Amino acid sequence: MGSKNGLSLDRVYQASFALKDVARKTDLIYSPHFSNGNEVYLKTENLQVTGSFKLRGAYFKISRLNEEEKAAGIVACSAGNHAQGVALASTHRGAKSIICMPDGAPISKVEATKALGAEVRLVKGTYDDAYTYACKLRDETGATFIHPFDDPDVIAGQGTIGLEILDQLPDVDAIVVPVGGGGLISGVAYAVKKLKPNVKIYGVQAKEAASMADSLKYDEQVTLSTVSTFADGIAVKHPGDLTFSLIKKYVDDVVTVTEDEIAAAILSLIEKQKLIAEGAGAVSVAAMMFGKIPVEGKKVVCLVSGGNIDVNILSRVITRGLVTSGRNATLQIALEDKPGQLVDVATIIAGCGANVTGVHYGHSDPDTAVTSCVLTLEIETRDFAQLEEVRQTLKDKGFNLI
Amino acid sequence: MGSKNGLSLDRVYQASFALKDVARKTDLIYSPHFSNGNEVYLKTENLQVTGSFKLRGAYFKISRLNEEEKAAGIVACSAGNHAQGVALASTHRGAKSIICMPDGAPISKVEATKALGAEVRLVKGTYDDAYTYACKLRDETGATFIHPFDDPDVIAGQGTIGLEILDQLPDVDAIVVPVGGGGLISGVAYAVKKLKPNVKIYGVQAKEAASMADSLKYDEQVTLSTVSTFADGIAVKHPGDLTFSLIKKYVDDVVTVTEDEIAAAILSLIEKQKLIAEGAGAVSVAAMMFGKIPVEGKKVVCLVSGGNIDVNILSRVITRGLVTSGRNATLQIALEDKPGQLVDVATIIAGCGANVTGVHYGHSDPDTAVTSCVLTLEIETRDFAQLEEVRQTLKDKGFNLI
Repeated sequence: MGSKNGLSLDRVYQASFALKDVARKTDLIYSPHFSNGNEVYLKTENLQVTGSFKLRGAYFKISRLNEEEKAAGIVACSAGNHAQGVALASTHRGAKSIICMPDGAPISKVEATKALGAEVRLVKGTYDDAYTYACKLRDETGATFIHPFDDPDVIAGQGTIGLEILDQLPDVDAIVVPVGGGGLISGVAYAVKKLKPNVKIYGVQAKEAASMADSLKYDEQVTLSTVSTFADGIAVKHPGDLTFSLIKKYVDDVVTVTEDEIAAAILSLIEKQKLIAEGAGAVSVAAMMFGKIPVEGKKVVCLVSGGNIDVNILSRVITRGLVTSGRNATLQIALEDKPGQLVDVATIIAGCGANVTGVHYGHSDPDTAVTSCVLTLEIETRDFAQLEEVRQTLKDKGFNLI
Repeated sequence: MGSKNGLSLDRVYQASFALKDVARKTDLIYSPHFSNGNEVYLKTENLQVTGSFKLRGAYFKISRLNEEEKAAGIVACSAGNHAQGVALASTHRGAKSIICMPDGAPISKVEATKALGAEVRLVKGTYDDAYTYACKLRDETGATFIHPFDDPDVIAGQGTIGLEILDQLPDVDAIVVPVGGGGLISGVAYAVKKLKPNVKIYGVQAKEAASMADSLKYDEQVTLSTVSTFADGIAVKHPGDLTFSLIKKYVDDVVTVTEDEIAAAILSLIEKQKLIAEGAGAVSVAAMMFGKIPVEGKKVVCLVSGGNIDVNILSRVITRGLVTSGRNATLQIALEDKPGQLVDVATIIAGCGANVTGVHYGHSDPDTAVTSCVLTLEIETRDFAQLEEVRQTLKDKGFNLI
């Protein structure tokens, strides 16, 4: 059933047993909203301990180290979910861990990793610099380096999600999985295809970081010079060796989604499912919403892999979603510079049932007459229909919307 | 075991059986973040079908109607979660439902209710006007009116949550429950106290809508003239008769939380638990966070009752939370009206690693000299320390922060 370092179904079951008291068997939630001529379910790994699936692989890997290896310590490199997974797993297994992070890492991630018992080393530069430093540390100290994805034990750990899905929805037809380095989908695809070969496995990448999709297309591992997506959890420049070969063998297709599609999926998950997903976690849902995968009439599981999104980014995603769905708008009105104009505009807007949330009033626009002013208003509306009603009423009363 | 219209443990078990294929047995999630010298778990009814617990009571009530009653139809009055619960339950049981809503109800709630198969009647005025209209409709048509809380079957339906909690965490010490009209806590308290009398049951209300807390204090049902909370799901002016008597008998205490405390709880649920709660749904967590209940060393379940929050309000809650935690700020700087000043300021801010998200520049401030300009900047920072670094560096370079 596979060597010490090989992947096997047996290994995935071992991981499942090892994780029993540590990882949550996350809920599988049926989603009427995302179902459209099919049945869509969400596997909520955003509700996993540490906010992502990464704990599973890291924990299983570390649980297999012997006492001598544990005594030499653990080292890892990550600015995100892997850091927290390794930190918690090491602490839980009684090993000391050092996590190397680029020094621009969000303070919230640094603090969360420290709180789970790890020592954090901030390394000047990028992820690649932190990675180099971590490898040096491993070589100097004899610590075990926990790779974020290209490791059979890590992959076996992530594969436990596949076992859970088959248990929770035995007649599943297809599983849609976010892809960065490919550890998650490798594990899930391996476990599921070994047990139920006719279940389809689809991967999803951000279009701006499609290293695995491109590698499959060219049938060789490509390296992207830059990756530019707010789905930072899957912003990987180069696929793993092991993951690339597993995905070629076990995954049916890898598709891509745009940044706007990811943002729309995050907003829909909030509004319709009451779930926070990070960009990487929402790409599976984005692929469903925007028809990237052939799942007509099927029972489909979208794996929502994590929820660790920076709140500033979340705020921007929501704000943008409100604008693109007609619920927030900015109006610019050229007003004559005489008393009472502001009152009139405010009265009209209130009469339409809309809500003013911001006002700016000044002479700054060079396109308008010297005697006129520009009023800029932020308003909240229910939908595009109400927004249009506000615009039309202002025009009907003779106001000049710019 | 109780009359047709009485509450009994038997009735709650009947409800549990009736709900098997309709309501989700929502996850109970351990929360290390909210645990502080105790063990805190979240009962996630925000992940219930329709986004709140309300489905349970409405469905059980409607499931007990005979064919003749169902043929006469269902009527209810609600601008929120009860509307969706009744709509889905009626459709599922093959009955026609009319939901009366005040005409200012958010379009999203109207559409969601229609999508679940109900006819929506928008009634001019307030909730009270819609209620009067609904009663008239009931009297004219012989339809069954589904009360949102003051009904033994509705209460038995909500009580099923109590049974689930005892099953999911048999050694629970205390359960914290949001209180509006009191249907939810009545059902939960009744079921739990009948089975495990020493489990404490605490209710939580918004301070600005504390009709039940005040009624308990004065030992008579008070009526508030106004309720003013963004937790609209528990903005109830007058407690129910049945719920008031059940709460007096089975609930240990009812406490209150402020609007800011509710907002902080919503933000923490997003950041730490990846869950969206509405105001009413988050009051239980707010009470825990702000030490309103004596649960030192206990196993505590916070019932998160719903997640149907308007996204505009959610956006404001997040924005406010970012400001109060030092992650968004507005700086005002008095600049001399000469070239290059803006470049200098922008360079300093970038040097501190902060991010500019909005700029306004003008002569509008009457307190500054005629030759100077006021620069208003919106910036994103990691925390208060970084914000202070930005301020201090600007001051050190001679800039005048207003």
